Amino acid sequence: MTERPSRRSGGRDARIAARQTSDSSRVVRPGLMGGQYRPLSDRDVERIHAAALSVLAEIGVADAPPALQSLALERGCKLDPSGRLLFPRMLVEDVIAKAAREFWVHGRTDSRYDVHVGGQRVHFTTAGEAVTVLDLKKRRFRPSTLVDLYDFARLVDRLEHIHQFGQTIVATEIADPLAHAASIAYACLSGTAKTFGISIGQAEHVAPIVQLFDMAMGGEGRFVKRPFAVVGCCPIVSPLRFAEDSTAVLMETTRLGLIGDVAIAAQAGATAPAALAGTLVQTVAETLATVMVVNLVRPGHPTTFGIWPFVSDLRTGSFTGGGGEEAILSAAAMQIARYYDLPASVGAGMTDSKLPDNQAGFEKGVSVAMAALAGGNYVCECAGMLASLMGCSFEAMVIDNDMLGMVQRSLRGIEVNDETLSLDAIRQAVDGQGHFLGSDQTLELMQTEYLYPEIADRKSASVWAEAGGRDVLEAAHERVHEILGSHYPNYLDAGTDTAIRDRFPIRLAPEDMRAACKRW
Amino acid sequence: MTERPSRRSGGRDARIAARQTSDSSRVVRPGLMGGQYRPLSDRDVERIHAAALSVLAEIGVADAPPALQSLALERGCKLDPSGRLLFPRMLVEDVIAKAAREFWVHGRTDSRYDVHVGGQRVHFTTAGEAVTVLDLKKRRFRPSTLVDLYDFARLVDRLEHIHQFGQTIVATEIADPLAHAASIAYACLSGTAKTFGISIGQAEHVAPIVQLFDMAMGGEGRFVKRPFAVVGCCPIVSPLRFAEDSTAVLMETTRLGLIGDVAIAAQAGATAPAALAGTLVQTVAETLATVMVVNLVRPGHPTTFGIWPFVSDLRTGSFTGGGGEEAILSAAAMQIARYYDLPASVGAGMTDSKLPDNQAGFEKGVSVAMAALAGGNYVCECAGMLASLMGCSFEAMVIDNDMLGMVQRSLRGIEVNDETLSLDAIRQAVDGQGHFLGSDQTLELMQTEYLYPEIADRKSASVWAEAGGRDVLEAAHERVHEILGSHYPNYLDAGTDTAIRDRFPIRLAPEDMRAACKRW
Repeated sequence: MTERPSRRSGGRDARIAARQTSDSSRVVRPGLMGGQYRPLSDRDVERIHAAALSVLAEIGVADAPPALQSLALERGCKLDPSGRLLFPRMLVEDVIAKAAREFWVHGRTDSRYDVHVGGQRVHFTTAGEAVTVLDLKKRRFRPSTLVDLYDFARLVDRLEHIHQFGQTIVATEIADPLAHAASIAYACLSGTAKTFGISIGQAEHVAPIVQLFDMAMGGEGRFVKRPFAVVGCCPIVSPLRFAEDSTAVLMETTRLGLIGDVAIAAQAGATAPAALAGTLVQTVAETLATVMVVNLVRPGHPTTFGIWPFVSDLRTGSFTGGGGEEAILSAAAMQIARYYDLPASVGAGMTDSKLPDNQAGFEKGVSVAMAALAGGNYVCECAGMLASLMGCSFEAMVIDNDMLGMVQRSLRGIEVNDETLSLDAIRQAVDGQGHFLGSDQTLELMQTEYLYPEIADRKSASVWAEAGGRDVLEAAHERVHEILGSHYPNYLDAGTDTAIRDRFPIRLAPEDMRAACKRW
Repeated sequence: MTERPSRRSGGRDARIAARQTSDSSRVVRPGLMGGQYRPLSDRDVERIHAAALSVLAEIGVADAPPALQSLALERGCKLDPSGRLLFPRMLVEDVIAKAAREFWVHGRTDSRYDVHVGGQRVHFTTAGEAVTVLDLKKRRFRPSTLVDLYDFARLVDRLEHIHQFGQTIVATEIADPLAHAASIAYACLSGTAKTFGISIGQAEHVAPIVQLFDMAMGGEGRFVKRPFAVVGCCPIVSPLRFAEDSTAVLMETTRLGLIGDVAIAAQAGATAPAALAGTLVQTVAETLATVMVVNLVRPGHPTTFGIWPFVSDLRTGSFTGGGGEEAILSAAAMQIARYYDLPASVGAGMTDSKLPDNQAGFEKGVSVAMAALAGGNYVCECAGMLASLMGCSFEAMVIDNDMLGMVQRSLRGIEVNDETLSLDAIRQAVDGQGHFLGSDQTLELMQTEYLYPEIADRKSASVWAEAGGRDVLEAAHERVHEILGSHYPNYLDAGTDTAIRDRFPIRLAPEDMRAACKRW
């Protein structure tokens, strides 16, 4: 099977050599189409939708902030005797019908990184805001810091199949909320040219961060015209209560014309029903409530339908991200988002393993594949996260990039046309040399049909053994060192950098950024 | 989120305790329905079908054995000038229409292990016939032996989510074909009560193995009435040639009324077109040719539509089982099998990694999930295999069982009905304690809606660190020792055992079976 024709013309050899220079962007690209996997019947989707509307109309959402309440009551919402905000079915249907179907997030310096969110287009993004980072050698988690976030940004900048850099960790050493938000924003701006997402804890800090982004773009008002980042928020405390601060952030983000990137993570068996259908009902209702918030503040303004149903291990009540229940819930949630045709995000690719081991591999792979094939626009949490979202790992990030490549190639599917059906190629092989190695079609397709992994090992067992018999974790550790020891991007020019540092409490010291080479 | 009510009644505590006794058979079962994932459009499936019929009608299959040729010519097939057997489109369509839609393989001693193959029902089975076994500590592969197969059988006997024991390895120390086949059959019969699959290399050994199986069933003619095993064969050498010995085995198997379990593994870019659609066309044609063989010998007799499209890494020409190309091809093949409504098998769950590491985890998880969701009746190669099918691993088998459990839970999907939509449960939680922990619905569902993994770690990071900070491979190694050091089933009674040993050259010495406790 591995026999090759023994002699080839120089011209063909040259062509082969040229094609062996890998350019995987010819094979896969951001925004491949999902939606081929539909775990629910159409009827089941409609029943879940109807039940979610009943929840919003009859049970409602508690603790609506006064500013939201007055907007909602104006549009026909009601308060029940205990003050819960009830959303009439017709109003919700109307808002869904008129809501934005898509939005763009733009690469600040490179349009190759533009992300077009909506439709069936699938993108992979980190997320998580973990509080620890895995120290692989010691097999323990240590508190995460700002310089870790900068390192993660630099790393993701070099990992092809991660399309956006969502905030992987928090800077646990920074207590002041504005300093935290500004420093996180700065670390992302410095470390990656990709689009990114950050969290802002308090509404009054949204405008200052927009100023920071405007400075990075070279002028006031520029960011909102061509946003390169989204602002994460979790405006619901499940079951069915508005979170005061985060709702205010979403309202302010919307008011300023930014993209609020919502995550609603009701947890089946703890903060949502143990019946998975019931968790979908409640999470759909809660997520629709956030769509209402955005559209009450600014009708038709885009946001993410950020439906992240989570799962409990009912033996302990703890969150578990790695089971089949989580995978099917996430995929079903994305099918429902496609039913609404709203730009959507979901948390998939979580694992309960504490190490980037085989368990992490299959828990991530299965859930990411299912969420992507179901048409998730933003598949979040898909890289780097471990320990049920408690920690992030540099090595896992590199391995997960290969996993995402595999899923990307699967998503691309199979093109069927006269040429790819290959009747001529089959006839030629049968009549000729009896195989397809080195045929014109094979040479033509080797760099457009086939994706080659970055670190996943494809050596034969004997070659592998001679090369030291490494596992992928060792290869990943080495690759992390290679990238972080050499990739020091400079995505802010010196003048802008100084101006931002003068204006904001940036806690990422230049000497720490330069000292990165010593850390790695 | 993990808060629990601090006091509960004794009755409720008792109920909780009772329900914490895991019985995962209430959560998932063999034969869950796939088919929700359809990677190809209906039109593309039809075009691939039409092209495959063109291949069979116009290019045909070379090297048909004389016995097959005469049957085929009688039914209207033709030979082209070079002797290739051409199958008229109408004949192929007619055979597909009249072919068996399903078959049963029965647990020999326990009907819980019955496997009903066909429709959308999904089963997981080992397979592979590797020639090596991974020595985890030494990180090297050693030649596989008969006693390894016996150990794999005992291990799979205890792994819930592996529904059938296909022959994982060959006994490299046995050169004589009949002794090999009989010894393999004996090892499977002794080691597991599950249904199994073995390969028989030569047609004249099929009848003796049936005799052996009849002895195990306690009387002549019993096996064919209630088969507990299928007979593997690979009757095609790609592209488009019959393999003499294996075709004879399939014909003899069919003649005797057994289930021939076919695997057609044309390799994209080497023995099939590099265009994935072309590989599907050729593999569909080749697999339909084997369906023709069975139905020419015995019209309407069941067999597997064993379509296993493989993939080359075109940088080397070597087989690669772990890429996205393999995953999408396998899923598409299963969609085509569902289009034909033929009982089908596919190879999915292969990895190019040499160790049960993170790479193995995601390569297996993604491809198994996709093949299962596409409705593969027999998802083969889904457990234990490593190194692009060159080796098998006991530790991988145990880990993969948890992966298969996760996929099983995903396959089961989400039941939507008045009760699971949970409007009452949501209302009660909102009006009452504000969460769902310990609610009646939660307690009711914790053993029927949620699957708990066998070895996958769900501990918190701190508890995990205190418990030694192990990875799943260490846990798997321990579990292998537990099972193989304690599980010595005796599925053949002493009289039958002696009778079989008197009649057949069984190379598995009783002292080696008993010495298993020393190996583990």
